[in-house]
Amino acid sequence: MAYRTTHARLERDQALREHILGCALEMVAEGGFSALSMSRLAHTAGIATGSLYRYFPGKGALAAEVFTRATRIEVNALKEQFFGQGTAAERLRAGIAHFAARAWHSRQLAHALIAEPLEPDVDTERLRYRAAYAELFHKLIKQGNDDGSFQVGNISITAACLVGAIAESLIGPLSPQARALRASGLPSESLESYTRALTRFCLRALGAKEPSP
Amino acid sequence: MAYRTTHARLERDQALREHILGCALEMVAEGGFSALSMSRLAHTAGIATGSLYRYFPGKGALAAEVFTRATRIEVNALKEQFFGQGTAAERLRAGIAHFAARAWHSRQLAHALIAEPLEPDVDTERLRYRAAYAELFHKLIKQGNDDGSFQVGNISITAACLVGAIAESLIGPLSPQARALRASGLPSESLESYTRALTRFCLRALGAKEPSP
Repeated sequence: MAYRTTHARLERDQALREHILGCALEMVAEGGFSALSMSRLAHTAGIATGSLYRYFPGKGALAAEVFTRATRIEVNALKEQFFGQGTAAERLRAGIAHFAARAWHSRQLAHALIAEPLEPDVDTERLRYRAAYAELFHKLIKQGNDDGSFQVGNISITAACLVGAIAESLIGPLSPQARALRASGLPSESLESYTRALTRFCLRALGAKEPSP
Repeated sequence: MAYRTTHARLERDQALREHILGCALEMVAEGGFSALSMSRLAHTAGIATGSLYRYFPGKGALAAEVFTRATRIEVNALKEQFFGQGTAAERLRAGIAHFAARAWHSRQLAHALIAEPLEPDVDTERLRYRAAYAELFHKLIKQGNDDGSFQVGNISITAACLVGAIAESLIGPLSPQARALRASGLPSESLESYTRALTRFCLRALGAKEPSP
């Protein structure tokens, strides 16, 4: 009986933790990590601020967990595109298009994950996940060297280059300035032209046969 | 007379400020921003900690200024290579080789500037300087499109891609892990092979005639 009570409480705790993280993620998706505040979050989640601190010792730990969860979803989404059907070049194209479209549809969240100035703890997680992305590219480039898609000598350096190129090139189009332009109907980079430019950059850099412009 | 006294004091203040910044930069070059501490710095600079705070309100402001100064030097060094003599492709090669060599010879400092997890204030400066680098690449790519070195459609996206590629690809070779490998005599990426891989990546991505491998 004691066991069952404990078990039920653990499950309730776990469910509440998930609920809090869900609310926090929504908050970040709407206003970036700077919009995440413990008191606002407690209010949104419908719990007392004191209870919130029982689950997360502070904003830093919470932000790091939101970052990790959200980024893990992106890494897995890219992995699925990269290691599905087709040649390595086709899979690279599919992965870039999918990744860019996801970023475009959650601009504020994508910007927060890639570029928002954050506490050192979250920065450290960022470095870790950049390495996880680089591993995916490493594996794909290797497969592409084998199936004739690519001609790459130094795979490690090249994989890091691609990770950096994609992240950096997203910062401008996702920036608050670009979002403001778009909101006021002024011309801004479209997903299509961005994806075309980035795909061309990456395929060329890998020594793929010149893709059509 | 009052004016001359004030003037002399201003000059002395300015000289002391420069001295402090010089000591701080050395500290960062030796141990990264995490090694920068107000009390150690006061000791090294030979002043009282209280006096140090008269010049810099805290570690954040000091770190941001060290970051800005050190990065400005790198941006200017790259600018000089990019807009000297030769075709745009030649200047790109020279710029990359110079930039990589500078990073290699001050690994700890370069790592601190590019990748060390830092306070949001310094992160914001980092974003600003990434944009300054992107401007240099933008101008060079445009010149390269004109002189037949490159064939680039979307110059803005491509410039950002290059900035990201170069920064990200440096993180691994400059990382504390790689420095430890090197220090213990184990094989690690050499400046030559790194520069070759990065140059090839960039030239290919810009649609330059396939550089010799």
